[in-house]
Amino acid sequence: MREDFVLINVRPNGEAAKDVVVRDGRFADIVAHGSRAFDGMRVVDGEGLLLLPGLVDAHTHLDKTLLGMPWYRNDVGPELIDLIENERRMKRALGIDPQRQSAAQIERSVANGTTHIRTHVDIDTEYGLAGLEGVLASRERYRDIVDIEIVAFPQSGMLIRPGTVELMDRAMREGADVVGGLDPSGVDRDPKGHLDTVFALAERYGKPVDIHLHEPDSLGAFAIELIVERTKALGMANRVTVSHGFCLGMLADKPLARLGGMMAEAGVHLMTKGGAASPRPPVLDLTEMGVNIASGCDGVRDTWQPFGNADMLDRAAIVSQRNDFINDVHIELALRLCTYGGATMMAIDGYGLSAGCDASFVLVSAETPADAVASRPVRRTVYRKGVPVARDGALVAA
Amino acid sequence: MREDFVLINVRPNGEAAKDVVVRDGRFADIVAHGSRAFDGMRVVDGEGLLLLPGLVDAHTHLDKTLLGMPWYRNDVGPELIDLIENERRMKRALGIDPQRQSAAQIERSVANGTTHIRTHVDIDTEYGLAGLEGVLASRERYRDIVDIEIVAFPQSGMLIRPGTVELMDRAMREGADVVGGLDPSGVDRDPKGHLDTVFALAERYGKPVDIHLHEPDSLGAFAIELIVERTKALGMANRVTVSHGFCLGMLADKPLARLGGMMAEAGVHLMTKGGAASPRPPVLDLTEMGVNIASGCDGVRDTWQPFGNADMLDRAAIVSQRNDFINDVHIELALRLCTYGGATMMAIDGYGLSAGCDASFVLVSAETPADAVASRPVRRTVYRKGVPVARDGALVAA
Ligand SMILES: [Zn+2]
Ligand SMILES: [Zn+2]
Repeated sequence: MREDFVLINVRPNGEAAKDVVVRDGRFADIVAHGSRAFDGMRVVDGEGLLLLPGLVDAHTHLDKTLLGMPWYRNDVGPELIDLIENERRMKRALGIDPQRQSAAQIERSVANGTTHIRTHVDIDTEYGLAGLEGVLASRERYRDIVDIEIVAFPQSGMLIRPGTVELMDRAMREGADVVGGLDPSGVDRDPKGHLDTVFALAERYGKPVDIHLHEPDSLGAFAIELIVERTKALGMANRVTVSHGFCLGMLADKPLARLGGMMAEAGVHLMTKGGAASPRPPVLDLTEMGVNIASGCDGVRDTWQPFGNADMLDRAAIVSQRNDFINDVHIELALRLCTYGGATMMAIDGYGLSAGCDASFVLVSAETPADAVASRPVRRTVYRKGVPVARDGALVAA
Repeated sequence: MREDFVLINVRPNGEAAKDVVVRDGRFADIVAHGSRAFDGMRVVDGEGLLLLPGLVDAHTHLDKTLLGMPWYRNDVGPELIDLIENERRMKRALGIDPQRQSAAQIERSVANGTTHIRTHVDIDTEYGLAGLEGVLASRERYRDIVDIEIVAFPQSGMLIRPGTVELMDRAMREGADVVGGLDPSGVDRDPKGHLDTVFALAERYGKPVDIHLHEPDSLGAFAIELIVERTKALGMANRVTVSHGFCLGMLADKPLARLGGMMAEAGVHLMTKGGAASPRPPVLDLTEMGVNIASGCDGVRDTWQPFGNADMLDRAAIVSQRNDFINDVHIELALRLCTYGGATMMAIDGYGLSAGCDASFVLVSAETPADAVASRPVRRTVYRKGVPVARDGALVAA
């Protein structure tokens, strides 16, 4: 039930205390705390809490988390192909139900203050659109508490597995919002063919593109060049994302500056999760080059690895530590990846803490934004469009 | 108050359920759950929880954490010397009281299941032995709930700051247990002089050695060679630790194998925290070479960086992720660094889960050891020598 109210004594992004009027699910007015009377309005006491915009998980895999399932004892081999094939086997062996599992992760995410999620969903010839259908059902079920964007993701390869392109096409017709791709050379063995197919689907359906790119150094850089060329040729500025882009963490300064400049100019976003054992795209350098960067939890306790808790404040801490961010301004940048950076990438309408924006936000007991990242306190309250959806780390009963 | 009891239905290191008899603060007997009657003994129900040995934080800095203090907004410069000098300034500016601050971290550590801590304590010409005195006072205060070993640590350099060696000598007389050192070339500019001084102090007081070594590639490798030479010459096998040893994460396979072999043969331990932005000593390779490896929280929310929560299960997760450990056997190895590896390094008497060992242990709600690392549930109960010292993440009132 949406009700207008005024939230008094909160500190947006750590600023001085403010009173915030929420009307019709939006921020109507934001004024210095105590500077005005609010006769007749319902007052909610913000207790001086830190107010952050809703967290944005710009890259995860809701369809295949093991959250809530019995512990999976892993002994998978070390190569990418081992992980992909093990997962395809385990989906059936363990009974990973995409609808049930996406629900488990969505509830955890929202309790942790996430208001927007972009999830990749596996599309392959073995499971067809089962993942998509499960996640679509969960999206519908949770539509009042979180916004979910779905990427059709050819996890097992696309051109190398005949029938996958047709499934990708069907996925786009049946509700996917973004066309995904994966290691054009490393997996599909045909960078031009892979990317032409991905961008053709994007053009056909008028949808954005988001490509998993794990390829190293110059091979990865070549893929980014091809992605930039297509982004420009098709007028898709700000609608294309390179996810991971490990190669950006492996280049010397000059080729990095060249590639970062190309991405910024073409409007190609980067998503980095700050993976502890993978090459690290340098967040500060790339930001200074003008690249918009988002972040995401990626796999949360799945057959690839057992870590993760669907918490984007944790993610900001991981990105900070991986980038050796010590100073507050830098930790604030890492948090920005998990808020505004993701919102820019996903072109979220009405995102932010200004008057007119959706009142989708998180209240935490922390002194500053960097403190919130370092301490990761349980989220006190999470609001979506003016309605509280989680409190003290648990969903508000519907 | 120590009382004998039997803890029934617990799973030591994830094994089948056992009943564990605790007598005089030690494990007296460990039998299959339900296989025996325990007439007249007090029974404690372990509810099928996972039982782990007490966690060992083999490297931290209790004297200078900011835990519990107001948020410190950092804008320190990027070099090691910037961090060292900023910290020396901030100790006074912020009023970092070593006794109060070590108490704050100790309480957090014990609540997180840590039963043994090795802490480095700054010794320098500006603050003299103030850090040592504060930590000694805390050690005394908490002597019934945790074992603390103190390293006299010349954080600001030793030979380059006249008077420091004399202070180190006094520190050893006044209660420090281990002689510390720091970047013999990088900080003291005299690797032979620095290490000769450190080992001379160790010989004089019959104490172990623990040296912070951040030096890169061949410079760091040279320092390790000098450390190994002295360890052998002085018959100090298993009493010398290289902390961090970033160089071990920067060498090619052959020089790494050579150096790792030397460390194993000489009995020089390695302490790695799996730092996200520093070179990564390869835990699996070095273990296979026979090097004993421990881990520690290192700085917890200090002027160097704001992260950390004094939780060694978190640390096992960080070491796992930094080493790309996905499989259970590898995650169990990372946990081993935070238990047996640290106990071996610190030569803790009676450590472990066998009959005869001290009944110092942690109960957590997790299916397996790797699950405990991935999930990091709040510690259900922490026992030290048969006495519960923490429960549900908080100290048991004394
Ligand atoms: Zn992914
Ligand atoms: Zn240290």
